[in-house]
Amino acid sequence: MSDTDKPPSAATPRPKRRRGRKAHAAAPTARQPDYRQLRHPFPQQTMFSEDEIMSIHNTALRVLEDLGIKILLPEARDIFAQAGARVDHEDMVFIGRDIVQAALDSAPKEFRLRAPNPLREQDYRLGSMIFMPGVGCPNVNDAERGRRAGDCNSFTEAIKLCQSYDVMHTFGPLTEPQDSPIHLRHYETMRIQLEYGDKPMFAYARGRKQVQQGFDMVQEALNLSSDDFADGVWLTTVINTNSPRMLDKPMAQGLIDFARAKQMSIVTPFCLAGAMAPITPAGALTLQHAEALMGITLTQLARAGAPVSYGGFSSNVHMKSGAPAFGTPDHLKMQLGGGQLARLIKLPWRTASGAASNTADMQAGLETVMGLWGGSLAHGTLLVHTAGWLEGGLTFGYEKFINDIEGLQIFAELCTRPRADAAEIGFDALKDVQPGGHFFATQHTMDRYATAFYDPIVADLRNFGSWRDAGAQSSAQRATAVWKEKLATYTQPAGCAEAAARLQPYVAKATAAGGAPPLD
Amino acid sequence: MSDTDKPPSAATPRPKRRRGRKAHAAAPTARQPDYRQLRHPFPQQTMFSEDEIMSIHNTALRVLEDLGIKILLPEARDIFAQAGARVDHEDMVFIGRDIVQAALDSAPKEFRLRAPNPLREQDYRLGSMIFMPGVGCPNVNDAERGRRAGDCNSFTEAIKLCQSYDVMHTFGPLTEPQDSPIHLRHYETMRIQLEYGDKPMFAYARGRKQVQQGFDMVQEALNLSSDDFADGVWLTTVINTNSPRMLDKPMAQGLIDFARAKQMSIVTPFCLAGAMAPITPAGALTLQHAEALMGITLTQLARAGAPVSYGGFSSNVHMKSGAPAFGTPDHLKMQLGGGQLARLIKLPWRTASGAASNTADMQAGLETVMGLWGGSLAHGTLLVHTAGWLEGGLTFGYEKFINDIEGLQIFAELCTRPRADAAEIGFDALKDVQPGGHFFATQHTMDRYATAFYDPIVADLRNFGSWRDAGAQSSAQRATAVWKEKLATYTQPAGCAEAAARLQPYVAKATAAGGAPPLD
Repeated sequence: MSDTDKPPSAATPRPKRRRGRKAHAAAPTARQPDYRQLRHPFPQQTMFSEDEIMSIHNTALRVLEDLGIKILLPEARDIFAQAGARVDHEDMVFIGRDIVQAALDSAPKEFRLRAPNPLREQDYRLGSMIFMPGVGCPNVNDAERGRRAGDCNSFTEAIKLCQSYDVMHTFGPLTEPQDSPIHLRHYETMRIQLEYGDKPMFAYARGRKQVQQGFDMVQEALNLSSDDFADGVWLTTVINTNSPRMLDKPMAQGLIDFARAKQMSIVTPFCLAGAMAPITPAGALTLQHAEALMGITLTQLARAGAPVSYGGFSSNVHMKSGAPAFGTPDHLKMQLGGGQLARLIKLPWRTASGAASNTADMQAGLETVMGLWGGSLAHGTLLVHTAGWLEGGLTFGYEKFINDIEGLQIFAELCTRPRADAAEIGFDALKDVQPGGHFFATQHTMDRYATAFYDPIVADLRNFGSWRDAGAQSSAQRATAVWKEKLATYTQPAGCAEAAARLQPYVAKATAAGGAPPLD
Repeated sequence: MSDTDKPPSAATPRPKRRRGRKAHAAAPTARQPDYRQLRHPFPQQTMFSEDEIMSIHNTALRVLEDLGIKILLPEARDIFAQAGARVDHEDMVFIGRDIVQAALDSAPKEFRLRAPNPLREQDYRLGSMIFMPGVGCPNVNDAERGRRAGDCNSFTEAIKLCQSYDVMHTFGPLTEPQDSPIHLRHYETMRIQLEYGDKPMFAYARGRKQVQQGFDMVQEALNLSSDDFADGVWLTTVINTNSPRMLDKPMAQGLIDFARAKQMSIVTPFCLAGAMAPITPAGALTLQHAEALMGITLTQLARAGAPVSYGGFSSNVHMKSGAPAFGTPDHLKMQLGGGQLARLIKLPWRTASGAASNTADMQAGLETVMGLWGGSLAHGTLLVHTAGWLEGGLTFGYEKFINDIEGLQIFAELCTRPRADAAEIGFDALKDVQPGGHFFATQHTMDRYATAFYDPIVADLRNFGSWRDAGAQSSAQRATAVWKEKLATYTQPAGCAEAAARLQPYVAKATAAGGAPPLD
């Protein structure tokens, strides 16, 4: 179970022991790393020159001005028209760069992701490193029950697993609970997030009524006034454009409604180079940037100052098959270029890791870890799909989730820099141990051993014989026992039962009133 | 098969096509990335402050001066004594910092790793990124034949596999050919490297006679004069100290003999924090640094100007079991600190990735890829164990090798920066495709599709149904077919047969003379 009662800290606390009587008297405490508030461990890296990034930015502005975006929602077209954009009879909207620039000026550069537990809140800004699990998966898969359609039970289990690891910073729409009818499903996803966790929450933008009810549910469950609710981001949504150059009705409405409620839209064009986007990294990024700027602009026209995140999920297709690929060289290059574009417009931004692989194997690991490094070196504020995402998002895999958590925790440990003062260097320890000896029993080791190193959750460090005799299980196979144990020992966080109880009458009434079908 | 007849280049060549009649006339050629000469794609990163690195360096000098190193070879002690070091009656050598500094001044900052094929040669210096396979493994493992002791056949197969991938830049002692008697084994490992490959070669330092014969064999096989042989590094060895603070006889003799022949020693203390080294990253690095400086100093005292590489392989043990762990947070922190120390003394250096896992699973992938990123961000000149290393080096795994090659190739692709000029951005392509359309058929795509993206060797990008119907194989399972196909289609490089023929009389004569037993 995660530790929720410690104060947040940017770094793993380290015991500040010194050699001496006092330090010897106290036994080392077990290691309790704090993964909750992270900043990227390395400076932001680049892939393009400054001039090239400016060319991409300027070409994106030219796309918006000269080529336009097809926007299917009349209300959104009207908002753009009122701001001075030209709208033609084919629903094409041509947005001048002055309109875009005004939006970039008014968009906040940082804000707070609120959460039921204040210790789970996150500062959403450039430099922060926030991990979201694999989301949007219609299916789930685990070694015990196989691959199957997502349902309320698997959504609940996935939320519990996310709750159980501090390195999983936010919730998200992990899988689609398809046993809940579509006009009632948003009640279930909101209830489950509130009932089983205390982290920043997510709601789909599937039409005004569902969205408004999402806002209502958070306020009901957490007993928030409307002022409380407007004081930070309690709900996040992801807005995908229909690349190339199209925005559908629910997405446009979501941008407007989340902005008006001062909740966060993450504008994420899904630009697969060679398919829905030009085949070159620079071309795909140009399209990503144009579409993201359009979405950001709509939020600011709907409500200046509304929290909004730049986003990118540009990767490439496998040209022989047309299949999406992740963790590829082009994926990483576009992550890094995306980070440069976000920095140019000074907005926090979202990128992603994740796997195309169909199972929790070395391919899956390579794809995911490559995207993790790329996303961090690109200084993505929010890294999405960091745990459990398989099949390019078609499945949330329990065993992959556990293995990914291992990778995220190792990465999070890099945020804590070791010291090299005299005590850490330990000249006396070096002096105490004779040539060819060992350090196991030195005081320097004894003072630190319990808290010295990352303790793996699924890695098996036994020798081959012991490992073979214990069943020769791969890390994917071992992960089954890990998630089962996590679910078996899951404890509901403080306040969740009360929140669920407060929510219940609202949901009952809304259900009786017919629910809220999604907007087509 | 690899392409050996192209000129070396630091970057993947990109077709410089332009829209126009001429470009349309020529069909795009298949992609031929050049992975042979690489430089790190990102700037060197740090983990400690400059002051802390200086403290580690100064403490390491104090270790050499005040605590000393136990050196078991009298000849090495004499060399140090002649240079002014104090030697006591317990074989402890105390080395003043002036002696160390003189050695650092005379050690070359860059040199060339020679190879039978000039196109395979490498510049060994800070900034270069050179990948060596997993080496030093007593066992091998593959899905068809299981885990077994290394032999000449598996050594040959491993050399052929390394030869087959350009991203594998050097050979190494992949596995131990235990079917060859120890006094003749060095003939076999040298013959196999020369007969089946054309890349920079390796020889163990197992005593003066074996080492000298290694030098002789290279000159015989490649028809080199002694001047030719001294004109660059034809043979590399790895010198492991017996941490803490001890140097055994074969290693000391190897340092002396490789230096005198102007061949490269890589001085690599294997400092496992918490076991053979202090439990803290700063403490383990201090020991690593002291021992490496001692070894470097011995090479320069044996022959000023001899090529030598700084090295580090500091990771941590798992404190619950004492087992070595790799790809851990502390491993990466010490890689980065090691890179800072190498930069401080301005020497090229060696680091490593590799897996503790017993099989080619997600754990193995995570461990290896973490070490790859850490090693590159630390600007390791030579990254050892990058492909095939399992069980902390006890086994060379064929399936892991193939999966690791995928990771290395993806990483190597990051060395090529994409352009973002007007042609690459492709405004016209963006204009040509209607909202909601696709880019598959645009001229911009047609001009580039054949060479656009990295083409995976083992990743499976099919959808779940197709993958399942084809047998639901993990990437480890699929890798079996990949290495088998590589071995089946292996072609001996030009000149190898001739080199082996030239070598044969020498080996026959040396064998008849009783071979060369290793030095104890």
